[in-house]
Amino acid sequence: MEPGPLLSGGASVAAVLPAGGSGERLGGATPKQFCAVLGRPLISYTVRALERINWISDIVVVVSLENIETMKSIIEKYCHKRITIVEGGLTRHRSIFNGLKIFLESKLSSCPLQKPEVVIIHDAVRPFVEEDILLKVVLAAKEHGAAGAVRPLVSTVVASSADGSLDHSLERARYRASEMPQAFIFDIIYEAYCQCSDYDLDYGTECLHLALKYCKTNAKLIEGPPDLWKVTYKRDLYAAESVIKDKLSQQVCVTTDMKEDSVQLGFLLHETLKNQVNQVKSISVFLCKNDHSLQSILGQCYNFICINDKRSHFQEIQELVDILEHASISVLHPVVLISVHFNVSENMSFSSGMEELAGIKEFAREVKKKNILVYGLLIRYEKDDPKIQDTINSAAAIISTLIKDRNPELIGQVLAA
Amino acid sequence: MEPGPLLSGGASVAAVLPAGGSGERLGGATPKQFCAVLGRPLISYTVRALERINWISDIVVVVSLENIETMKSIIEKYCHKRITIVEGGLTRHRSIFNGLKIFLESKLSSCPLQKPEVVIIHDAVRPFVEEDILLKVVLAAKEHGAAGAVRPLVSTVVASSADGSLDHSLERARYRASEMPQAFIFDIIYEAYCQCSDYDLDYGTECLHLALKYCKTNAKLIEGPPDLWKVTYKRDLYAAESVIKDKLSQQVCVTTDMKEDSVQLGFLLHETLKNQVNQVKSISVFLCKNDHSLQSILGQCYNFICINDKRSHFQEIQELVDILEHASISVLHPVVLISVHFNVSENMSFSSGMEELAGIKEFAREVKKKNILVYGLLIRYEKDDPKIQDTINSAAAIISTLIKDRNPELIGQVLAA
Repeated sequence: MEPGPLLSGGASVAAVLPAGGSGERLGGATPKQFCAVLGRPLISYTVRALERINWISDIVVVVSLENIETMKSIIEKYCHKRITIVEGGLTRHRSIFNGLKIFLESKLSSCPLQKPEVVIIHDAVRPFVEEDILLKVVLAAKEHGAAGAVRPLVSTVVASSADGSLDHSLERARYRASEMPQAFIFDIIYEAYCQCSDYDLDYGTECLHLALKYCKTNAKLIEGPPDLWKVTYKRDLYAAESVIKDKLSQQVCVTTDMKEDSVQLGFLLHETLKNQVNQVKSISVFLCKNDHSLQSILGQCYNFICINDKRSHFQEIQELVDILEHASISVLHPVVLISVHFNVSENMSFSSGMEELAGIKEFAREVKKKNILVYGLLIRYEKDDPKIQDTINSAAAIISTLIKDRNPELIGQVLAA
Repeated sequence: MEPGPLLSGGASVAAVLPAGGSGERLGGATPKQFCAVLGRPLISYTVRALERINWISDIVVVVSLENIETMKSIIEKYCHKRITIVEGGLTRHRSIFNGLKIFLESKLSSCPLQKPEVVIIHDAVRPFVEEDILLKVVLAAKEHGAAGAVRPLVSTVVASSADGSLDHSLERARYRASEMPQAFIFDIIYEAYCQCSDYDLDYGTECLHLALKYCKTNAKLIEGPPDLWKVTYKRDLYAAESVIKDKLSQQVCVTTDMKEDSVQLGFLLHETLKNQVNQVKSISVFLCKNDHSLQSILGQCYNFICINDKRSHFQEIQELVDILEHASISVLHPVVLISVHFNVSENMSFSSGMEELAGIKEFAREVKKKNILVYGLLIRYEKDDPKIQDTINSAAAIISTLIKDRNPELIGQVLAA
């Protein structure tokens, strides 16, 4: 068995992701870790957050029996790697214990996992975990035996007496909310689980508590960022979706053909998006025909504007779709592709104009299957028009809102600036 | 001085809304209570939640000196009633104390407030407070002297030792998060504030604690709904916006002229929206010319669909705008108005067709000033078309997304079903 990748400093690290929760607090049938955010289950975002870190050798996802097939299909659809699915127990602690056991039991299996020196335990419903905090808890766990992320309390904590009255309130500054991720020397947390009582396994929730109680290990508490919050209620799903949309809308790539008008319009749009639209923080322009310049930004950019002086030729945009598809850009996130049309000829009938524009609808519907969202944008562009900047501003505002909303119901619509 | 309205059972009730927070946790300059949600400051939603309850006689809003003018303009713009603005102190407790004092000091002023028997204390950043929980805390306060809403803890609470290690973790079931609203017999909480130390005023945050410590009053703890959460981070603003949009998109009113095709299309749209679109839970159809039927739903419905067989006459939609404006429907929330066009004539030029459709853009920009968002929707409608249901489904999906998103950047666009 080859050793897995090591953290600098030499520790082998794996992760256990308990995902057996039933989602009662959401008030819906689907457990929250399987709820879709931009069409993709929340747990896939969390798995991706761990998977992209190359010093985590294995990720064990613990799900209840009835969700094993769902989890398998998620792993396949979103091409997740280094994942092992384990069946959960009836409670959170029993599920985590099952996840830990697999590192010892799997010697017998056909696809053995290596027992790590340090194990990360994280929640499936905390998708925004960054490498920085993971590294901090792992290093602290290596030194102290256990470590966990904490946050300041948002509300005062009160203790109630038997009759439902206030007994006392806690001094807020002395206490912290225990969040995830946590990390442990594998042998310590495994030992704690082996020793703990059925009462602990059935009613406890805090791994740090087990390490303290059964292994005398005082976990190091690490102040974590606010993004670690747990998606608990329906409103948290809304918040998660908005946070993800925000992240995806930070970069726009403008592509044009080489015609003078297209290049000039592309330049004006680029400048306006950069200067006037708050939501779009960083813009790259690529005046291309040439795939090469595009390749370097693929994977960072999920928004493309394609400028053509022809009314409704989809050739250029089809080329872009092919490049995006070939690079698997839209596997994890929906990509926005805005087809900008200008110089629309004045002398054709309304119905045939609408007919031609309707073509984009058919095209968009096809491309949607690849998770690429195509919208049309008409710009009345005449170079010497004194009001051209107003039109460009209006176009930039529409582009910005399409990118920010990523609305699959509006694909194939042609908007007018 | 006339007595204010009384709660059934005879208690007079007022509310104090501390809104002096600085919004550090949002990472932005604007304190979160003044951040816009659908264009309207968060605090206005919270004020409205209290103001609509007729047994709350007065609402005292405590803001820092530099926000007094902002608060005045909010009250004026959104027509809030029964509000008194009071200047805050340096800390939350000092601000609340200032808010309480005004009920005693104002005898001297030109516009005196009556000292209430029970005072509600609520947060400006908890906009979703319902009458039910307010009534519960008020009645419990009347009986026990003090009462406050609590919620189960989402995370385990841990105590840290001096070196930042875990000292112990609290047993989750014994503790609760103290939320708002809270309510007190006025004399009890006022007495507590008068007696408490500078240390309490500067570093404390929990009113229930003061009532216990200085007046030996054990507050009754009332389990509150999850909607009471505190808008603390940027993601909470996103969540609040989504929750409000959800509430506003529950009802749609379809209006048509009396032509046969319009009525039939209206009927089909109504049925499809009702049956196929999850987001829209309850639909009313009004086949009107006649304002009377509309009047009865104004104030409950924020979404209107106006069906015309003419291509782009704004007369009908202008009438609807006038009715909405006259009823002040859009003062508190943006109203969505979708102008549906069908039977668009086949024999005109593309440019003149676009020109006519462009008219809606100008119109929408004007009406936007009244907080009414106008969108156009083209439907290719021929009664005996076998694919008519596909078209209607597509129209219903677009209508549903326009209503749900309430996107001000897309006003005046003409979408095609």
